[in-house]
Amino acid sequence: MAIRMGILGFGGMGNWHADNAPKVEGVEVVCVHDIDPARLADARKRGLRAYERREDFLSDPDTNLVLIATPNDLHRDLAIEALLAGKNVMCEKPVTLTLKELDDVIKVSRETGRLFTVHQNRRWDRDYLVMRNVVESGALGSVHTIESRLYGYKGYLYGWRARRASGGGMLLDWGVHMLDQFTFMYPYRKIRSVSARLHQVFCEEVDDLFIVDMAFEGGPDVRVQIGTFGLIKPPRFFACGDRGTLRIADFGAREGEIVRLRYFDNESGRVITTTEAGPTRTMAPQPEECVERLPLPEITENWTQLYRNLSDALEGKADLIVSPSSVRRTMQLIEAVRKSARSGLTVSTDL
Amino acid sequence: MAIRMGILGFGGMGNWHADNAPKVEGVEVVCVHDIDPARLADARKRGLRAYERREDFLSDPDTNLVLIATPNDLHRDLAIEALLAGKNVMCEKPVTLTLKELDDVIKVSRETGRLFTVHQNRRWDRDYLVMRNVVESGALGSVHTIESRLYGYKGYLYGWRARRASGGGMLLDWGVHMLDQFTFMYPYRKIRSVSARLHQVFCEEVDDLFIVDMAFEGGPDVRVQIGTFGLIKPPRFFACGDRGTLRIADFGAREGEIVRLRYFDNESGRVITTTEAGPTRTMAPQPEECVERLPLPEITENWTQLYRNLSDALEGKADLIVSPSSVRRTMQLIEAVRKSARSGLTVSTDL
Repeated sequence: MAIRMGILGFGGMGNWHADNAPKVEGVEVVCVHDIDPARLADARKRGLRAYERREDFLSDPDTNLVLIATPNDLHRDLAIEALLAGKNVMCEKPVTLTLKELDDVIKVSRETGRLFTVHQNRRWDRDYLVMRNVVESGALGSVHTIESRLYGYKGYLYGWRARRASGGGMLLDWGVHMLDQFTFMYPYRKIRSVSARLHQVFCEEVDDLFIVDMAFEGGPDVRVQIGTFGLIKPPRFFACGDRGTLRIADFGAREGEIVRLRYFDNESGRVITTTEAGPTRTMAPQPEECVERLPLPEITENWTQLYRNLSDALEGKADLIVSPSSVRRTMQLIEAVRKSARSGLTVSTDL
Repeated sequence: MAIRMGILGFGGMGNWHADNAPKVEGVEVVCVHDIDPARLADARKRGLRAYERREDFLSDPDTNLVLIATPNDLHRDLAIEALLAGKNVMCEKPVTLTLKELDDVIKVSRETGRLFTVHQNRRWDRDYLVMRNVVESGALGSVHTIESRLYGYKGYLYGWRARRASGGGMLLDWGVHMLDQFTFMYPYRKIRSVSARLHQVFCEEVDDLFIVDMAFEGGPDVRVQIGTFGLIKPPRFFACGDRGTLRIADFGAREGEIVRLRYFDNESGRVITTTEAGPTRTMAPQPEECVERLPLPEITENWTQLYRNLSDALEGKADLIVSPSSVRRTMQLIEAVRKSARSGLTVSTDL
């Protein structure tokens, strides 16, 4: 089914959707609402219908999807209003500020029979898809640890992102993506525990560095560590299994490698080697012929899949990939993160 | 005071001391005891007195220090025996298998008035000293996170190191060094919590990968992660502060860098940049003129300091650097690690 979008909130992400969504076949942006007249003028310049009143925007008969890209603290109320107006809704992330707010929206989605989804576009980021492909291919053997890390350069959060009441902070900004990548990767493995640290390195109101450790039942142990400031970049992804190791250096997965064991060299393993670390068997290098180096795999999927799946779901031909229940699980995880960070203790979970 | 050593247990580490300790001025190896006649023959070939009976070894009037390099489960009993025989004692690590055993030894050391110390030589490893120098210099600003990581290549532990009853496993093998480096670095900051995971990737009886997170009061959060198998090496040390970042690539600290902020460029921080990660302010690169890159500092100290300090302590001219209380704190930490790993939960500590 063709997607005919109305964009509610025409700031940074509203403009992103206006620019990008129409690149997907069958997606058209029809109209815009914003409280800022300057933004409405921008929309008109782009040839879009621009409504001054939200009621008029919501009753435009030509749209079948409302994209909500307002400040985060308004998501709940606006999503409910749009659903009640008979529209399907895609909300920008973070979907809401709390699990309770999300549940309110999901309830109305069920009652109205309208689809509700979230712009969790980072389920299709290239670096993530490469990591997932390698882990799921078995190339690393049984994977026991995965790290997902990213540091910004600027050290501070801008505007509402630095304010608690507006749903600011790195956990809600990047955390809802980077944690969601793992709840999405392991839909059937329970998260058994969550340990988290929220740092305020620069910001007074909100976290600007979060460190989350989650233990999936049967593995892996996953660490997600995202901050606003680090002048040397850690690998974007680092995964270890019992047959090999994966490093993805950068966001685009342009650089990285898979190093895999061809066979264990038990003979050399018994010899003590003097390394920089002293005499050792364990830390002595593996003979070069025992390992093989593989390039990162090619990935063809990208974010357009989110819109294509939504189109199929509107036609009843597919289940939503960004389903309310999958987003809800990530929000439950976020709440466990907050609870752990507040107490400084591990939270046992059944997520 | 000249150190005149008797070596108790002439395997790998006994031989290491015989080879290396005499390189330090004023240190001489006098005699050896082992239960293996072949090792005694080796010792004699090296011109050392070699005792078949432990009683004779311990009553050699020519030694003032017994170095214990036997299997770990014998450390407690042999240390006590040597102290009661009137000898000062340096024990190989892990000092004992439990805190209780260590307390037994410390008690006898106090009663006999003999010095008791442990070969925690990694307090003088080059990589560690470089990291510590940089952090303590203030070059990184206030440091909030430090990671210490090391992976072997072989995936398995050899001989007694794979057996629980003998005190095997990576936590007792490398953990007592790598955790000790941080208790030694922050003698006056309390460790407020410990979260740990012990993995058995290959070994049936003991851990061959440990991940320990400890939160020092007032910072930093420290992660120590050491395993027997990883084919791509993570940085040996990685430290982040609010002014800069440190990466030490390898054990010898031959490669690495300090990247430091010269000034925050607030102007460019307000601009949205389109990066591989999407439109962002936070993740946009810092202008090159805002940062400076510094080489790793030169370090002149090394492991010989351990022996020189011991010599001074025997003369009453200095306090022991590897004091029983400092070793005891590391052992308390090890016990907290075990407790956390058993329960899967954070352990609140007052260490």
